[in-house]
Amino acid sequence: MKIHETKVRVRYAETDQMGVVYHANYLVWMEVGRVEYCRAEGLRYKDLEDEDQIHLAVVEASCRYLHPAKYDDEILIRTSVAEAHSRMVVFHYDLVNADSGTNVARGTTKHIFLGKDLKPRKLPREHWHVFGLDARPGVA
Amino acid sequence: MKIHETKVRVRYAETDQMGVVYHANYLVWMEVGRVEYCRAEGLRYKDLEDEDQIHLAVVEASCRYLHPAKYDDEILIRTSVAEAHSRMVVFHYDLVNADSGTNVARGTTKHIFLGKDLKPRKLPREHWHVFGLDARPGVA
Amino acid sequence: MKIHETKVRVRYAETDQMGVVYHANYLVWMEVGRVEYCRAEGLRYKDLEDEDQIHLAVVEASCRYLHPAKYDDEILIRTSVAEAHSRMVVFHYDLVNADSGTNVARGTTKHIFLGKDLKPRKLPREHWHVFGLDARPGVA
Amino acid sequence: MKIHETKVRVRYAETDQMGVVYHANYLVWMEVGRVEYCRAEGLRYKDLEDEDQIHLAVVEASCRYLHPAKYDDEILIRTSVAEAHSRMVVFHYDLVNADSGTNVARGTTKHIFLGKDLKPRKLPREHWHVFGLDARPGVA
Repeated sequence: MKIHETKVRVRYAETDQMGVVYHANYLVWMEVGRVEYCRAEGLRYKDLEDEDQIHLAVVEASCRYLHPAKYDDEILIRTSVAEAHSRMVVFHYDLVNADSGTNVARGTTKHIFLGKDLKPRKLPREHWHVFGLDARPGVA
Repeated sequence: MKIHETKVRVRYAETDQMGVVYHANYLVWMEVGRVEYCRAEGLRYKDLEDEDQIHLAVVEASCRYLHPAKYDDEILIRTSVAEAHSRMVVFHYDLVNADSGTNVARGTTKHIFLGKDLKPRKLPREHWHVFGLDARPGVA
Repeated sequence: MKIHETKVRVRYAETDQMGVVYHANYLVWMEVGRVEYCRAEGLRYKDLEDEDQIHLAVVEASCRYLHPAKYDDEILIRTSVAEAHSRMVVFHYDLVNADSGTNVARGTTKHIFLGKDLKPRKLPREHWHVFGLDARPGVA
Repeated sequence: MKIHETKVRVRYAETDQMGVVYHANYLVWMEVGRVEYCRAEGLRYKDLEDEDQIHLAVVEASCRYLHPAKYDDEILIRTSVAEAHSRMVVFHYDLVNADSGTNVARGTTKHIFLGKDLKPRKLPREHWHVFGLDARPGVA
């Protein structure tokens, strides 16, 4: 299983008055994680939208908050593909404080591929390798 | 089981270039839902923080996205307490398009009570009724 | 000059670790203000986009922060049109704490009308009244 | 005048249904710009809050939007101190598309220094150099 690593630094805008990162913002970091995962595998997500007219829509998201991320922390996002077929993909994320190594959160997002009309589509075969799918003819 | 209803109108700021609401924003609406649930049950969450020095920290959140919410839609948030004891509470949310009645999303958040030091606390007994807990002496 | 009033309640998501509302969120409230201004004047902004294919793009925004808005405050947004012609409109906003009457902030946004291609357009004459423009033939 | 440069990549979360970055998010990037400016000058803003108990509160913000930033663009933020004395500082920002060199936006934020009690403070003299202030005794 491939794991891609990318980092974000916590912005003041992302904190709340509890003095920690507001929980919804972890989902934004997961977005950063999967976009950089795809880029590292040769797919710029922007091109998938612009050239293939395919969106990667979120159908499920979940997150377990283990240790609060704080302002100015560097967060290491470890992204992997937990499951995939031609119509959907599940990403898994481990969020870790880059300095201390503390596990900050663990999350999952499930996506389906949609056309511009927001109707389900199959992922074009040329991009299957990005998500670890076998693109040989006859395999689906 | 009590269900509290409140409404939000989708802001332009909450949309993304897919033309729908960005998925992380549903978690913000769930926040609105549980805060208004508590207010309806007699507890202003702000007072819990200011007077009791208790935070309601999110330890888990999940959401299933059923039908995309769009700009300017009115979203009805139906909030209920799915589970609670003196140290934690689980909220459940049904998000519905207020005009069409379409189910937009379904979500859950699990919380623990923390002190100002971000260490776990028991919820003061005077607030137990808010979450449907039995506050009779000897019951915990 | 018409002044339209609408209210928002401060969300936890909108606060930061200074214990006040993060400054960029005031611009989101101004969006709520001008959208409700237009609705009150008979124009649903969503329809302007969907039916007339016209966007109201922000070209300038400014805000003076007078007194910090805090979590759970109700903020009264007083919106007016400060200037308008067929190609642009300037909104002015007074943000006031609805309980105390304290001035929270004062802001301005300048907009131009764009087509779907993001090129400048004239506002269709049927909507001129919304912004106080004289729609008599020969007046431009 | 020192100019500090830092980059952000546009997140999907930052776009809106016009297909461009929602205007309030530029203020968040300006925050990234001034925090990195301070870090480059030897002051971690987090330490200013934690150790000196000083906040840098925004009292005015303005932005001119010149050319829309789009999803996945790399934005170069050029931050400089336009004006400063012991009680306030004005930052100026030029936002530029890092690939094309197009000017995206230009902005200004004015700040005052506050204590934990949200009352105005003088910046401790040891940090004056960060903002280009002359810290020699007798100069104020």
